[in-house]
Amino acid sequence: MDDVRFAVLGTGGIGRRTLEVSQHKDGLTAVAACDRNGVALDHDGLDVEELLDATEGNIASGPEEDVATDGGAAAEPVGSTEGVKQHGDQAGIVASEQGSPTETPIDDVIAESDDIDAVLLALPNLEHDFIPRVAERFAEADYGGVLIDVLKRSRVIGMLDDREDLLKESGITFVCGAGATPGFLTGAAALAAQSFVEVEEVEIWWGVGLKSGYEDNRGTVREDIAHLDGYDIEEAREMSEEEIEALIDEHDGVLEFHDMEHADDVLLERAGICDAEDVHVGGVLDVRSDEKPTTTTVSVTGTTFDGETGTNTFELDDATSMEANVNGPALGYLKAGVRNNRAGHYGVFGPADLLPSF
Amino acid sequence: MDDVRFAVLGTGGIGRRTLEVSQHKDGLTAVAACDRNGVALDHDGLDVEELLDATEGNIASGPEEDVATDGGAAAEPVGSTEGVKQHGDQAGIVASEQGSPTETPIDDVIAESDDIDAVLLALPNLEHDFIPRVAERFAEADYGGVLIDVLKRSRVIGMLDDREDLLKESGITFVCGAGATPGFLTGAAALAAQSFVEVEEVEIWWGVGLKSGYEDNRGTVREDIAHLDGYDIEEAREMSEEEIEALIDEHDGVLEFHDMEHADDVLLERAGICDAEDVHVGGVLDVRSDEKPTTTTVSVTGTTFDGETGTNTFELDDATSMEANVNGPALGYLKAGVRNNRAGHYGVFGPADLLPSF
Repeated sequence: MDDVRFAVLGTGGIGRRTLEVSQHKDGLTAVAACDRNGVALDHDGLDVEELLDATEGNIASGPEEDVATDGGAAAEPVGSTEGVKQHGDQAGIVASEQGSPTETPIDDVIAESDDIDAVLLALPNLEHDFIPRVAERFAEADYGGVLIDVLKRSRVIGMLDDREDLLKESGITFVCGAGATPGFLTGAAALAAQSFVEVEEVEIWWGVGLKSGYEDNRGTVREDIAHLDGYDIEEAREMSEEEIEALIDEHDGVLEFHDMEHADDVLLERAGICDAEDVHVGGVLDVRSDEKPTTTTVSVTGTTFDGETGTNTFELDDATSMEANVNGPALGYLKAGVRNNRAGHYGVFGPADLLPSF
Repeated sequence: MDDVRFAVLGTGGIGRRTLEVSQHKDGLTAVAACDRNGVALDHDGLDVEELLDATEGNIASGPEEDVATDGGAAAEPVGSTEGVKQHGDQAGIVASEQGSPTETPIDDVIAESDDIDAVLLALPNLEHDFIPRVAERFAEADYGGVLIDVLKRSRVIGMLDDREDLLKESGITFVCGAGATPGFLTGAAALAAQSFVEVEEVEIWWGVGLKSGYEDNRGTVREDIAHLDGYDIEEAREMSEEEIEALIDEHDGVLEFHDMEHADDVLLERAGICDAEDVHVGGVLDVRSDEKPTTTTVSVTGTTFDGETGTNTFELDDATSMEANVNGPALGYLKAGVRNNRAGHYGVFGPADLLPSF
């Protein structure tokens, strides 16, 4: 495949690490990145290292995100605040030599999107329809390329489907739910299902140890809290940082989740693997240790053509961080999205739609 | 995806079961099947049940295959020979109402291939270049569709690559090595590699219990014997059935293999996952039990972008038969091949080329 030129909207943990991981492979060129206050654009390729160095622990955030400034955590232990810039006019991308201040960062990227093959939407978790509305803006500008997100919420998939005609007209291939779970693990479930003519149950069970990555992933933690008994997404969004800390204290830093609203269910159903209701997602998050509290496992139970019932499993080594399991697969799906887009396949695709299945 | 009309060349174990498994899913229509002496063709769809019933335990074979007549084993226990037809003029597909005798079965399918989306080459293991030469014949007839095989030998991939220009000109998408291993497990390795920026080792370890499927899989067993210490493919091909039985007796029915020449290595290398030399394939075959003698496992060891080393694993339940793990994935890859073919992607593709990877 030819070179893929991509942009990242949002330079929180996921956006930054996607830029970082992309440097490890050939054929991926980062040409644009933006955050709330700034944009960096270079069609010959951004200097990713400079951009990451200049913005480390210096994430431009607004009122929805009360992001601490000692982050950059995946690469840097908590507490290392040396050289960290404070919020203000010079926060975020504008602190980079390559960045310019802007009040319309997304529009600035859209304006240059003719030469961009794929755009990763690594935006904070705002309203349910925020990502779908960003997609609309790209479609209205007649963008013909890939949009990809790492969203988790089942209901957002339907909102994207509602806009499928618009996306198709524009020539957009929207790959949704393409992080770790949904994403990597959804794909693993689709693959593991190939032994079976009928899938009875998919169980996705994840473990995340987030001590040194906590600051970078507050948005994700907040999103997870919405799945605890007695909470929902609205409630989690309105919690102050102090309330979240108190909740985490109550649980000694370890939160266990069951039957989460995770888009794996609708993404597997739309790919014809199984019914959404037969998909169960849960896991354990430890924000005070980098060790995973439980091993991330996908179990697919089904019946073979010759009448046997069995369970195939996919297990991630505890040593592989959530970050590694989000960003590699996200880039893999991004490239698969570009292949599909170049082949004229437009509309909404989940991870399992991009895998062989019979 | 629209309906996929496919043909099967060869109605040994793999060909028959592919026809059988295809009935469990929508969107797959078998329109042609042939064996050494006969061909069945119906563009509205074959009556697969009649074809399988009529030919059960009745495989038309030639001198290379000395296939016993009490087979049809995956569906039928050994010893059930009731109603089984003997070799002779009525052996194989010609015993079906839908079959006609022919001396040119492959050419007969080629003649009808304008209306066939994909052809599974489930032919016996003959000379190394037998499958590549069949592909040539399709190309020379200007076939524009998918050819797919479940071959195992690394060296055949190179022979296909040598013919890639011819395949591309004709508009053929050749999917090679698309059974269980290579195939299913190659894909699992490619997926599991997504956590890592560098893959150090891929270990594929399979277990097969083949008691009730032994008759149907003599060709596969012979192919495996070629990988035993002191044997090679030529030697294995020249062994009489008695010699093979004696060898199996010597090992009490259980053969263990290490460092096999399995195309997983070149298929993973061509997809950019790792070097071929870092792929190791082995396993244990028990021809006297249906229980798997060991659990089929794919282990992928690599380094993450954040510098950790880990091993992701994919395990097939012991209850899933080799047959289930060949034929589901083969049909999955067949459909993925058709999607690629319709998108204008021609040439030679391995299983890992059809999966997202970054």
